[in-house]
Amino acid sequence: MTVRHDPRLKGFASDNYAGVHPEILQAIADANGGHQTSYGDDVYTEALQEVFRRHFGDTARAWPVFNGTAANVVSLRAMTAHWEAVVCAETAHINTDEGGAPEVAGGIKLLTVPTPDGKLTPELIDRQAWGFGDVHRAQPKVVSISNTTELGTVYTPGEIAAICAHAHDLGLLVHLDGSRLTNAAAALDVPLRALTTDAGVDVLSFGGTKIGLLYGEAVVVLNPGAATGVDYIRKTFMQLSSKMRFVSAQFEALLTDDLWLRNARRANAMGRRLAEAVRDLPGVEVPRPVEANAVFAILPKDVTARLQKRFRFYTWDESTGEVRWMCAWDTTEDDVDAFAAALAEELGA
Amino acid sequence: MTVRHDPRLKGFASDNYAGVHPEILQAIADANGGHQTSYGDDVYTEALQEVFRRHFGDTARAWPVFNGTAANVVSLRAMTAHWEAVVCAETAHINTDEGGAPEVAGGIKLLTVPTPDGKLTPELIDRQAWGFGDVHRAQPKVVSISNTTELGTVYTPGEIAAICAHAHDLGLLVHLDGSRLTNAAAALDVPLRALTTDAGVDVLSFGGTKIGLLYGEAVVVLNPGAATGVDYIRKTFMQLSSKMRFVSAQFEALLTDDLWLRNARRANAMGRRLAEAVRDLPGVEVPRPVEANAVFAILPKDVTARLQKRFRFYTWDESTGEVRWMCAWDTTEDDVDAFAAALAEELGA
Amino acid sequence: MTVRHDPRLKGFASDNYAGVHPEILQAIADANGGHQTSYGDDVYTEALQEVFRRHFGDTARAWPVFNGTAANVVSLRAMTAHWEAVVCAETAHINTDEGGAPEVAGGIKLLTVPTPDGKLTPELIDRQAWGFGDVHRAQPKVVSISNTTELGTVYTPGEIAAICAHAHDLGLLVHLDGSRLTNAAAALDVPLRALTTDAGVDVLSFGGTKIGLLYGEAVVVLNPGAATGVDYIRKTFMQLSSKMRFVSAQFEALLTDDLWLRNARRANAMGRRLAEAVRDLPGVEVPRPVEANAVFAILPKDVTARLQKRFRFYTWDESTGEVRWMCAWDTTEDDVDAFAAALAEELGA
Amino acid sequence: MTVRHDPRLKGFASDNYAGVHPEILQAIADANGGHQTSYGDDVYTEALQEVFRRHFGDTARAWPVFNGTAANVVSLRAMTAHWEAVVCAETAHINTDEGGAPEVAGGIKLLTVPTPDGKLTPELIDRQAWGFGDVHRAQPKVVSISNTTELGTVYTPGEIAAICAHAHDLGLLVHLDGSRLTNAAAALDVPLRALTTDAGVDVLSFGGTKIGLLYGEAVVVLNPGAATGVDYIRKTFMQLSSKMRFVSAQFEALLTDDLWLRNARRANAMGRRLAEAVRDLPGVEVPRPVEANAVFAILPKDVTARLQKRFRFYTWDESTGEVRWMCAWDTTEDDVDAFAAALAEELGA
Repeated sequence: MTVRHDPRLKGFASDNYAGVHPEILQAIADANGGHQTSYGDDVYTEALQEVFRRHFGDTARAWPVFNGTAANVVSLRAMTAHWEAVVCAETAHINTDEGGAPEVAGGIKLLTVPTPDGKLTPELIDRQAWGFGDVHRAQPKVVSISNTTELGTVYTPGEIAAICAHAHDLGLLVHLDGSRLTNAAAALDVPLRALTTDAGVDVLSFGGTKIGLLYGEAVVVLNPGAATGVDYIRKTFMQLSSKMRFVSAQFEALLTDDLWLRNARRANAMGRRLAEAVRDLPGVEVPRPVEANAVFAILPKDVTARLQKRFRFYTWDESTGEVRWMCAWDTTEDDVDAFAAALAEELGA
Repeated sequence: MTVRHDPRLKGFASDNYAGVHPEILQAIADANGGHQTSYGDDVYTEALQEVFRRHFGDTARAWPVFNGTAANVVSLRAMTAHWEAVVCAETAHINTDEGGAPEVAGGIKLLTVPTPDGKLTPELIDRQAWGFGDVHRAQPKVVSISNTTELGTVYTPGEIAAICAHAHDLGLLVHLDGSRLTNAAAALDVPLRALTTDAGVDVLSFGGTKIGLLYGEAVVVLNPGAATGVDYIRKTFMQLSSKMRFVSAQFEALLTDDLWLRNARRANAMGRRLAEAVRDLPGVEVPRPVEANAVFAILPKDVTARLQKRFRFYTWDESTGEVRWMCAWDTTEDDVDAFAAALAEELGA
Repeated sequence: MTVRHDPRLKGFASDNYAGVHPEILQAIADANGGHQTSYGDDVYTEALQEVFRRHFGDTARAWPVFNGTAANVVSLRAMTAHWEAVVCAETAHINTDEGGAPEVAGGIKLLTVPTPDGKLTPELIDRQAWGFGDVHRAQPKVVSISNTTELGTVYTPGEIAAICAHAHDLGLLVHLDGSRLTNAAAALDVPLRALTTDAGVDVLSFGGTKIGLLYGEAVVVLNPGAATGVDYIRKTFMQLSSKMRFVSAQFEALLTDDLWLRNARRANAMGRRLAEAVRDLPGVEVPRPVEANAVFAILPKDVTARLQKRFRFYTWDESTGEVRWMCAWDTTEDDVDAFAAALAEELGA
Repeated sequence: MTVRHDPRLKGFASDNYAGVHPEILQAIADANGGHQTSYGDDVYTEALQEVFRRHFGDTARAWPVFNGTAANVVSLRAMTAHWEAVVCAETAHINTDEGGAPEVAGGIKLLTVPTPDGKLTPELIDRQAWGFGDVHRAQPKVVSISNTTELGTVYTPGEIAAICAHAHDLGLLVHLDGSRLTNAAAALDVPLRALTTDAGVDVLSFGGTKIGLLYGEAVVVLNPGAATGVDYIRKTFMQLSSKMRFVSAQFEALLTDDLWLRNARRANAMGRRLAEAVRDLPGVEVPRPVEANAVFAILPKDVTARLQKRFRFYTWDESTGEVRWMCAWDTTEDDVDAFAAALAEELGA
């Protein structure tokens, strides 16, 4: 097949723009050859359970799925009865970036709460966690939080524990959208379980694609009583991979020899480097805390326009001129420096 | 990562048990490195459209998705309004093997017809294609056929053309579940478009996984008027791959240099070789025509039990003792001969 | 308001064509006046529970809904998890006459079985009750039967008990579509509970509209462990009546002073009278047993055409010329005799 | 049947607590007797179309359904493709009081906007009407407004026209939840069409139950191009009444001889009378404009508690002590005066 792209080019648009880490590709190659039972009854998927238990505790069980939207919708559907609803931040990915998948494919109502920084708190949860037993109100059953959040902020173990304690007191379960959980754990320098199992999270969407996988996310049930029918829901929601050995092998590689941590630390370090490099440039404002691999900045719109011709990145808010820069597992110091230099150049123009 | 399996072992359970063809893995490696726009706005996905047009004609447009169930459900939902239904054979994969995904996730009623050989005909379609305009009856809108069928049989171009003409006369559209379309085309020695575009098929689920891909199937709209909103439905049905360049690169490799045809011919040839090797063994009956890569056989149950300890394969019908043997793109003459010898041994025991 | 119709005209098309029994209208008037808490928290709905317990036993609880399709879909959804399916006869109303509501609104797959007479048996159930634990197969969870059936036949208590015992052995629940349960009970001269609670039925759709109500059916849970969330499902499926006192008052009237039995006996008696009157007419065949208020007959098509100009009724099967005649609670001896005379006339013409 | 309630007792909880207007009951009785074709093919439903055209213009077509939730969900589903979403006020009934029916049964995402008074404006609509063509965003397609609103406020014809013009400019359609449209029209002393057809509304949920019907609402398509498949959606959403003649006869009575207007004027007048009677009582605040039949008041919580023992009404906001009083078509001057006197008494206690 023709190579059609220039593999030297990188941008700051999304950690989804990055490719596959070489150790992941190698794991796929290693799992290849011969026949393995399809649909998850293979030796790699079997071994994967042990890998997940090592990171998330003895009760953890993982169901690989194809993408992050699916990990979220399968998780939420397995945690709710037909009529039950999910409390989340207004900015949650499930609310803003999944095309309505929870409602359209899952039939799940979201009860949204405005937040200053993308983070729920017990107090904010209470704004939607009421009306239990009233048939006129969609019944709150799950609190869903994202770590890192969509605004680049990070929940600490204590913050998550407080949310879980409050939710459980109310009879609610907690789901964590961990599309970038590795970045959060690396940022706080804590193990993955500190932000999940140990804090009381019931079900986790564990992200692989953004941290170096070819494809693959996992529904990880930490509290076995919190989800039912994941096997069946994964199938009916079109997420049962036939050649699952390859998804499982990727996850095993990611969770072995600290690959997840090396990748996440690099991405986060590049985020910090970028923030430092641009923070004091005249005309640039960095309005949000830079806690992991995302940097938000407010720029003059003409500068944004010129810079986007040289590097891919997204405008976050047209009205304020805020843009988002994401660093990935493959972002290098040179990439950051070249980008910061280009920004300085455009600002000076 | 540890290699956990013996790559020399192969079975006859499913073409999904096979791994990834080396040219496909190479295509993934070639597409790796650097950043590419996610969610399909990359150079590989762009190039893929031209590849599909080359095989399926100028109006064809492809939407890669993750698996075959998804290709079918996304296709059918894009072809129907909320209340419209799908006519299919009772044995259709969408009816028997997708866990109810069309109904559960798609909200689509299937109107099934018993068939002798897994194949619909205009006459059989008429058993369900009625009641137009009657609100009490789910409105038939699509005829869905599989080629090859779930029983290993193959529709000819003429048979498909007759179905399409009849369906279109009734105001119905035609969907083809082409999970093994490559096997069908290779068996008949016709181009892919002879069985699809040229015969009048409106929308195709084009299979990649069973013919050597790591993962990936495609919704291919051949008649642009026959489907709406595929972009949105793919997203809400959790099938939008973020790193889509890799799915597209696999399909490009499959559809270039006749890889699809080489793989399909080999699988089909192994099916024939297997059928010939076992057909005359005493105690074996081959009750269905062997037209592609599937061989059905009726064996004494104790023989089946012993043979399954040596090679993986499935019992198709417990009551009759019928088993199914599938050959894959990686099945070799030696594999077939060893299996036939083992069968002869067990029969003689 | 202008009276726009001739209240003397009656036909044999459906028991839905009949109006409202005077005692039912009176019950509505009695419940009128003043304010009553809406959505079911009124004195009539409270009293209704006692009425249903009297007829169906101490564990029965009723949820009034608007129509029969809703009673069925709410029942089935309350008995199943997202991925679970329902075994029913191919001729079941839920499969043929509800526009696909179970699949489209409920997301429920039906697993259908052909039957000679519209009646399931343990053996017929086994044709679909398999594959438990296999994620590729929609998981059977409920057996749904109709009594009377759509073909006018009646299950006896013993037949239902055998079905329930078999279903329960398999871990399945039993739903009874009792749109015409009153006709069945009257035909067999048994109390309503003999065909339901006492035979092991778990959940019942109890019909009111066809036996003299203005509107209203009820989901009646007989086995409290067999259904969850009926309150919420009724609401989200748009079946929670605001002025519920009036639905409940109608049911109380129907189930008091044997109104249901008087109405059903009359309808059934008229069915028998009609069958006797036409059975021996030359050119008429009565191909099915007449066990309640439905009479099926095969007529010359030109006779049907002429007779339909004089009385409303439906052709059941265009290919065979079979027609269906339904008697209602308001059908009189004179109505039957006039109709039979008209048929004789048209046959003689 | 036993009369179980005291028809002299009335409260201020909801216009749903009131019973049936005598002229409506008479219309049901008039339509009774003899047989009429079921499912809407009767003379009363036919005549109803002319009645709706008289009030809403020549293009109007009405589909009776059972309740208000259904009128809304059927309307919205008929106006949208699978992936399309609905912009509405955060306080909209479809968002807060239908148990999640739009999402759960309809699969429709709501895009909500906070408002000061329950009313959308072009500017507020813009907060959610964006992202067209972006597959990651649920596609806005419909703006849904309620008149009167859930906060008792009323949109004027000009305000609705501005919303419709803006929505149409954006390629959006407008749905009006007219559960209390009659109250709005009476309040403004304009014909029904001034607030709907003439202002550019595309589809209307027209309320009957709250203004004196026994049961029944209608989906009224004013712009024939704005909705598809209403017949089928009504059926699959379990809203097709078999004895539809009786729903249609009620609507005919409501829309004839100004019954709707007489009822709405009375309810509104009682709202004004109540507001005037309590507004100046010490300890009472009437925080919202009283524009139709709803009065909101802030009371000391102990007063509320005592008063609720004498008259039924709901607390609207536990935190502020705000309560809601609704007047109905049957509320009398004496009812209002007795209630105001009781309030004064409790305040003085």
